[in-house]
Amino acid sequence: MALDPGLLEILACPDDKGPLRYLPDEDILYNPRLGRSYPIRDGIPVLLISESTDLDEDEKKRVDEITADGSQSSSPEG
Amino acid sequence: MALDPGLLEILACPDDKGPLRYLPDEDILYNPRLGRSYPIRDGIPVLLISESTDLDEDEKKRVDEITADGSQSSSPEG
Repeated sequence: MALDPGLLEILACPDDKGPLRYLPDEDILYNPRLGRSYPIRDGIPVLLISESTDLDEDEKKRVDEITADGSQSSSPEG
Repeated sequence: MALDPGLLEILACPDDKGPLRYLPDEDILYNPRLGRSYPIRDGIPVLLISESTDLDEDEKKRVDEITADGSQSSSPEG
Protein backbone atom coordinates (compact mmCIF):
# COMPACT_ATOMS: atom_id res chain seq x y z
CA MET A 1 0.00 0.00 0.00
CA ALA A 2 2.52 2.60 1.15
CA LEU A 3 5.48 0.86 -0.38
CA ASP A 4 6.70 3.94 -2.20
CA PRO A 5 7.94 6.36 0.40
CA GLY A 6 10.07 8.16 -2.09
CA LEU A 7 9.79 7.01 -5.66
CA LEU A 8 8.40 10.35 -6.75
CA GLU A 9 11.03 12.13 -4.72
CA ILE A 10 13.85 10.57 -6.67
CA LEU A 11 12.34 11.00 -10.12
CA ALA A 12 13.94 13.87 -11.96
CA CYS A 13 13.28 15.90 -15.05
CA PRO A 14 15.76 14.90 -17.76
CA ASP A 15 16.12 18.57 -18.63
CA ASP A 16 16.71 20.52 -15.42
CA LYS A 17 17.23 17.40 -13.24
CA GLY A 18 14.81 18.78 -10.67
CA PRO A 19 11.88 17.02 -9.01
CA LEU A 20 8.62 16.20 -10.70
CA ARG A 21 5.05 16.19 -9.50
CA TYR A 22 2.61 13.43 -10.29
CA LEU A 23 -0.93 14.00 -11.56
CA PRO A 24 -2.75 10.71 -11.19
CA ASP A 25 -5.88 11.90 -12.96
CA GLU A 26 -3.98 12.84 -16.07
CA ASP A 27 -1.22 10.27 -15.97
CA ILE A 28 1.49 12.84 -16.28
CA LEU A 29 4.60 13.90 -14.45
CA TYR A 30 4.94 17.65 -14.19
CA ASN A 31 7.93 19.93 -13.92
CA PRO A 32 6.62 23.14 -12.32
CA ARG A 33 9.80 25.06 -13.03
CA LEU A 34 9.68 24.57 -16.77
CA GLY A 35 5.90 24.23 -16.97
CA ARG A 36 6.41 20.97 -18.78
CA SER A 37 4.68 17.63 -18.54
CA TYR A 38 5.83 14.12 -19.31
CA PRO A 39 3.40 11.36 -20.22
CA ILE A 40 3.02 8.04 -18.46
CA ARG A 41 2.12 5.53 -21.15
CA ASP A 42 0.92 2.08 -20.19
CA GLY A 43 2.54 2.51 -16.82
CA ILE A 44 5.84 3.66 -18.28
CA PRO A 45 6.92 7.20 -17.41
CA VAL A 46 8.31 8.64 -20.62
CA LEU A 47 10.93 11.02 -19.30
CA LEU A 48 12.21 12.23 -22.62
CA ILE A 49 12.36 15.88 -23.54
CA SER A 50 11.26 14.98 -27.04
CA GLU A 51 8.06 13.47 -25.66
CA SER A 52 7.30 16.25 -23.20
CA THR A 53 4.67 18.93 -23.54
CA ASP A 54 5.18 22.58 -22.71
CA LEU A 55 2.03 23.79 -21.05
CA ASP A 56 0.56 27.15 -21.90
CA GLU A 57 -0.06 29.71 -19.16
CA ASP A 58 -3.61 28.59 -18.42
CA GLU A 59 -2.63 24.95 -18.26
CA LYS A 60 0.36 25.73 -16.05
CA LYS A 61 -1.82 27.66 -13.66
CA ARG A 62 -4.34 24.85 -13.52
CA VAL A 63 -1.74 22.16 -12.97
CA ASP A 64 0.19 24.28 -10.47
CA GLU A 65 -2.98 24.58 -8.45
CA ILE A 66 -3.74 20.88 -8.63
CA THR A 67 -0.26 19.92 -7.53
CA ALA A 68 0.32 22.73 -5.04
CA ASP A 69 0.85 21.25 -1.61
CA GLY A 70 -1.82 22.93 0.45
CA SER A 71 -1.36 26.51 -0.73
CA GLN A 72 -4.41 26.37 -2.94
CA SER A 73 -5.12 30.09 -3.12
CA SER A 74 -6.99 31.13 -6.22
CA SER A 75 -5.61 34.41 -7.43
CA PRO A 76 -7.98 37.40 -7.33
CA GLU A 77 -7.41 38.49 -10.89
CA GLY A 78 -9.80 36.28 -12.81
CA MET B 1 5.56 14.88 1.13
CA ALA B 2 2.84 12.35 0.42
CA LEU B 3 2.08 13.66 -3.01
CA ASP B 4 2.40 10.30 -4.68
CA PRO B 5 -0.52 8.21 -3.51
CA GLY B 6 -0.20 5.93 -6.44
CA LEU B 7 2.68 6.57 -8.78
CA LEU B 8 4.20 3.22 -7.99
CA GLU B 9 0.83 1.58 -8.34
CA ILE B 10 0.47 2.66 -11.93
CA LEU B 11 3.99 1.86 -13.04
CA ALA B 12 4.09 -1.34 -15.02
CA CYS B 13 6.68 -3.75 -16.28
CA PRO B 14 7.07 -3.30 -20.04
CA ASP B 15 7.22 -7.08 -20.37
CA ASP B 16 4.34 -8.58 -18.38
CA LYS B 17 2.59 -5.22 -17.77
CA GLY B 18 2.24 -6.06 -14.09
CA PRO B 19 3.11 -3.90 -11.08
CA LEU B 20 6.61 -3.13 -9.93
CA ARG B 21 8.15 -2.72 -6.52
CA TYR B 22 10.54 0.04 -5.65
CA LEU B 23 13.81 -0.46 -3.81
CA PRO B 24 14.98 2.96 -2.69
CA ASP B 25 18.32 1.72 -1.38
CA GLU B 26 19.27 0.22 -4.70
CA ASP B 27 17.49 2.61 -7.03
CA ILE B 28 15.73 -0.15 -8.86
CA LEU B 29 12.22 -1.14 -9.80
CA TYR B 30 11.58 -4.82 -9.34
CA ASN B 31 9.22 -7.22 -11.04
CA PRO B 32 8.72 -10.07 -8.54
CA ARG B 33 6.97 -12.28 -11.09
CA LEU B 34 9.85 -12.33 -13.53
CA GLY B 35 12.56 -11.77 -10.95
CA ARG B 36 13.74 -8.85 -12.98
CA SER B 37 14.95 -5.40 -12.02
CA TYR B 38 14.94 -2.12 -13.89
CA PRO B 39 17.42 0.62 -13.10
CA ILE B 40 16.61 4.18 -12.12
CA ARG B 41 19.34 6.34 -13.60
CA ASP B 42 19.68 9.97 -12.57
CA GLY B 43 16.06 9.91 -11.47
CA ILE B 44 14.84 8.38 -14.71
CA PRO B 45 13.26 4.93 -14.42
CA VAL B 46 14.58 2.96 -17.36
CA LEU B 47 11.69 0.62 -18.07
CA LEU B 48 13.20 -1.14 -21.04
CA ILE B 49 13.54 -4.88 -21.24
CA SER B 50 16.91 -4.42 -22.89
CA GLU B 51 18.15 -2.53 -19.84
CA SER B 52 16.70 -4.88 -17.25
CA THR B 53 18.55 -7.40 -15.15
CA ASP B 54 17.36 -10.92 -14.47
CA LEU B 55 18.20 -11.67 -10.86
CA ASP B 56 19.60 -15.03 -9.89
CA GLU B 57 17.84 -17.13 -7.25
CA ASP B 58 19.76 -15.70 -4.31
CA GLU B 59 19.21 -12.14 -5.44
CA LYS B 60 15.53 -12.78 -6.05
CA LYS B 61 15.12 -14.22 -2.60
CA ARG B 62 16.88 -11.27 -1.05
CA VAL B 63 14.90 -8.69 -2.98
CA ASP B 64 11.64 -10.55 -2.44
CA GLU B 65 12.28 -10.35 1.28
CA ILE B 66 13.15 -6.67 1.19
CA THR B 67 10.04 -5.79 -0.77
CA ALA B 68 7.64 -8.25 0.86
CA ASP B 69 4.84 -6.31 2.50
CA GLY B 70 5.02 -7.50 6.08
CA SER B 71 5.30 -11.22 5.46
CA GLN B 72 9.00 -11.25 6.18
CA SER B 73 9.34 -14.89 7.13
CA SER B 74 12.76 -16.28 6.53
CA SER B 75 12.43 -19.76 5.15
CA PRO B 76 13.70 -22.59 7.37
CA GLU B 77 15.87 -24.21 4.75
CA GLY B 78 19.01 -22.13 4.89
